[in-house]
Amino acid sequence: MRGALVWLQDDPFFSDPAEALRHISDGAIVCRDGLIEAVGEAAEVLGALNEPVQVEHYPGCLICPGFIDTHVHYVQTGIIGAYGDQLLDWLLDYAFPAELAFADPAYARAQAELFCDELLRNGTTTALVFCSVHEHSVDALFEAASRRNMRIAAGKVLMDRHAPEGLTDTAQTGYDQSKALIDRWHGKGRNLYAITPRFAATSTPEQLQAAGALWAERPGVLVQTHIAENKAEIAWTAELFPDRRDYFDVYAHHGLAGPGAVFAHGVHLSEPELHACHSAGSGLSHCPSSNLFLGSGAMHVFDVKDAERPVEVGLGTDVGAGTSLSMLRTLGDAYKVSQIAGRPLDAVRGLYLATLGGARAMGLADRIGSFAPGMEADFVVLDPEATPILKARNARSGSPAETLFVLMTLGDDRAVKGTWVAGRLCKTSV
Amino acid sequence: MRGALVWLQDDPFFSDPAEALRHISDGAIVCRDGLIEAVGEAAEVLGALNEPVQVEHYPGCLICPGFIDTHVHYVQTGIIGAYGDQLLDWLLDYAFPAELAFADPAYARAQAELFCDELLRNGTTTALVFCSVHEHSVDALFEAASRRNMRIAAGKVLMDRHAPEGLTDTAQTGYDQSKALIDRWHGKGRNLYAITPRFAATSTPEQLQAAGALWAERPGVLVQTHIAENKAEIAWTAELFPDRRDYFDVYAHHGLAGPGAVFAHGVHLSEPELHACHSAGSGLSHCPSSNLFLGSGAMHVFDVKDAERPVEVGLGTDVGAGTSLSMLRTLGDAYKVSQIAGRPLDAVRGLYLATLGGARAMGLADRIGSFAPGMEADFVVLDPEATPILKARNARSGSPAETLFVLMTLGDDRAVKGTWVAGRLCKTSV
Repeated sequence: MRGALVWLQDDPFFSDPAEALRHISDGAIVCRDGLIEAVGEAAEVLGALNEPVQVEHYPGCLICPGFIDTHVHYVQTGIIGAYGDQLLDWLLDYAFPAELAFADPAYARAQAELFCDELLRNGTTTALVFCSVHEHSVDALFEAASRRNMRIAAGKVLMDRHAPEGLTDTAQTGYDQSKALIDRWHGKGRNLYAITPRFAATSTPEQLQAAGALWAERPGVLVQTHIAENKAEIAWTAELFPDRRDYFDVYAHHGLAGPGAVFAHGVHLSEPELHACHSAGSGLSHCPSSNLFLGSGAMHVFDVKDAERPVEVGLGTDVGAGTSLSMLRTLGDAYKVSQIAGRPLDAVRGLYLATLGGARAMGLADRIGSFAPGMEADFVVLDPEATPILKARNARSGSPAETLFVLMTLGDDRAVKGTWVAGRLCKTSV
Repeated sequence: MRGALVWLQDDPFFSDPAEALRHISDGAIVCRDGLIEAVGEAAEVLGALNEPVQVEHYPGCLICPGFIDTHVHYVQTGIIGAYGDQLLDWLLDYAFPAELAFADPAYARAQAELFCDELLRNGTTTALVFCSVHEHSVDALFEAASRRNMRIAAGKVLMDRHAPEGLTDTAQTGYDQSKALIDRWHGKGRNLYAITPRFAATSTPEQLQAAGALWAERPGVLVQTHIAENKAEIAWTAELFPDRRDYFDVYAHHGLAGPGAVFAHGVHLSEPELHACHSAGSGLSHCPSSNLFLGSGAMHVFDVKDAERPVEVGLGTDVGAGTSLSMLRTLGDAYKVSQIAGRPLDAVRGLYLATLGGARAMGLADRIGSFAPGMEADFVVLDPEATPILKARNARSGSPAETLFVLMTLGDDRAVKGTWVAGRLCKTSV
């Protein structure tokens, strides 16, 4: 493929953003067997080929690494835009009922297909996904992802308390089912398993302990859960775990902190918790659209990304509390949240969160999130003139960073001209 | 036209929202000469006709009064998504340079065409519009609006200080030009003039006085300006007008408060100012997307809408500080702002702000904003299944209010299946 290439080669929160961003105005990427074989100036890369190739050319577009959505619930796709609640009531009123419907495997399969199609329509090639408590909800998602050859990480939700009957397991069955799913799916094709306690309040200490034990037995698997999203949730967690120093310590104590663990939200994490997160090598998923929709608060991303104790942060849509599967629209909300927090998020750092930052938070930066020979060939092709208003605005754009910012502000799935997964074009413009 | 009709017949902030909302699941509207001749149950309305008519049928859609955007700068359409600033710097860095380009009449005409087309693509049939300081920027807009027969209110910006050369007038020239524009455009076709001092800080007391005098001479004309958007702006205004009690009093003192005056933002208005606004019979324009984008703060709409001293509030996109000309997307941001403010905005009250509330704020509720015989025939036809994700979500919707909320959250210009202006279909689905 040929076009303007834009990607991050470094963390722009800890380096000069202008240097962290690579931009090749007429670049090319050669893909073979799902991997990037060569990337660079089009003249050089294409000139070095000694065999005829089919070149897909995207003049006027920006080609970026495929978006990485580090926090999303596929089982809540059907309840985006559920009115009126903050987190804990929203779970009871909307999320749990939606997840109960996944008791039906046929429904789960249909939703998994829709979800994967929507990810690709939005330029997202990797996601870290919460399924429901039902084992087959995980099977359905991995089957759908496998058919599309997407790099998806997912897991069955573990909940053994404070949830409706029909959505709970036990420490033992949760452990057993998760283990079976790991053995069935982890590392099969591009699928990765993530051990998935929903959050501290819906798991007993025994279940958290079992989850931690399973992680120790299956290194390489990911962990995902929620942390410090909402103040009532934090207070409740402190009541439930009076012996733990703080929210992060609940997970750390049970063996659930470490590289490959991704904690969603972290809106209200304290400085000691951020230190602990750094020491553990765990990542965070920033979910601005969801945080606005549920009134959870504004994460201060520049405070979280402190060079004194670096923490990896990715971006998450958090559908169904988030209002869009589009990472561009989520970046638009990230900007708005950053203005509330007092320091505006620029497009280069935004793109980092949506690509390399997410890959690093998930421990996958050797495979996805940027462009280099040997990396997996997942791309999103962005058309900065996809709608009349984008076209009018982009005519004034003076740099790739400005074009990216315009896409962050005005873009949606229509700006995704193409999504490439493992070297193949999966989505073409609507 | 035939389909599900949804409109407000009362203010749902001051009455039971379920009763304020009219919903006719199989309704019809008969239009003649740009007006509504009849509205009601389809069987009755169509049965009573004694001549053949052409019926446009919209099964599965919601037909609402055309959206009313009570605050927008057409001269800033080209700078939506300008990075990094809060209000006062944003004006200097982006808004003023953009408006300088309107010195060129040909450019103004092209932008006016784009702007009117975009309004209609987004279902907006009336807008209260800031032009630039240049008289011909107003001519360009009214010419474009007249060709589309839209009910547009607009005016040339008055600024005689604190703005770049090339964007300033004087108290006298601003008065003269505004008066000439009123005589040229106000009441011609559907055009309405609005006297438009940008905000207190960019007009001398003399200019505000002249603007107030002009309003007294030309009753029926509107007034539009900004108020209490940003804390630095408020502090600056207090410095510039040390003799005035508060920000609202700056305008009231100069004869610029009264019915037909619309104050944009009002994020930080004090209780005495809201009382004064009520007493004056003036309206406010709530601009949530802009307030988020510029980090201005969260208007507490339920506090502003206090039954003890009712104030009319409409919704404004405030493009170019707002991030979309879509009133649906602006309602999505209104919900997010309301969650920050601590009480969630429901879809019925949201629709009120976007239709009847805006009409009342502008003093036009006898003509637009709801459905009744004799009202002007401006409609928006919303398709709750316009995108795959809308379709999936809407399948779970149980009421018109829920469908409206889903449209508020997930909708954009694609959900606008048709826009009718004065009884004619102007926009069809993309």
